[in-house]
Amino acid sequence: MSEFNNVTVVKEANVYFDGGVTSRTIFFADGSRKTLGIMMPGEYTFNTGSAELMEIMSGEMTVLLPGSPDWVTVKGGEAFEVPENSSFKLKVTAVSDYCCSFL
Amino acid sequence: MSEFNNVTVVKEANVYFDGGVTSRTIFFADGSRKTLGIMMPGEYTFNTGSAELMEIMSGEMTVLLPGSPDWVTVKGGEAFEVPENSSFKLKVTAVSDYCCSFL
Repeated sequence: MSEFNNVTVVKEANVYFDGGVTSRTIFFADGSRKTLGIMMPGEYTFNTGSAELMEIMSGEMTVLLPGSPDWVTVKGGEAFEVPENSSFKLKVTAVSDYCCSFL
Repeated sequence: MSEFNNVTVVKEANVYFDGGVTSRTIFFADGSRKTLGIMMPGEYTFNTGSAELMEIMSGEMTVLLPGSPDWVTVKGGEAFEVPENSSFKLKVTAVSDYCCSFL
């Protein structure tokens, strides 16, 4: 069981796509930020500000990254990075638990 | 924006009812524990170990508490308590963001 210690958690959730994607924001002592989230099955398009590292703890999806012609399957235990100021698409096929780090 | 400071967050989500209810566990310095969760619309039955205080930050549901003959509507900004070692039923009618404290 992984844990994040000595962090600040925002009580209210971030809710997107009518709850299809929800997350909690965590701030670390060094000022960095992550979100821990759940994606329900569905299709979503996200826009990034900062670059992001998306770790998928459990679940399954296909991902269309910016500049890529192909959808790539990503499962629990895998991760992908998204450039800053870009857009990516997800087709989530199983309830997915993720950790997003802002790079 | 409410925050919990100097806490430990478990990275992996708690996932119930095929993702209909998901939560994150938070440990406080005094050893106490809360979960921050999302309930998607649906009907759920929960069993308690410890007594629980359920704060609904946003959303809407009706609740059937143990020993009560009536379903009660609970909305964002409201809360209810559930006795230890009991069972309660929820009919969630809008995506709901909650904070559960174990008493």
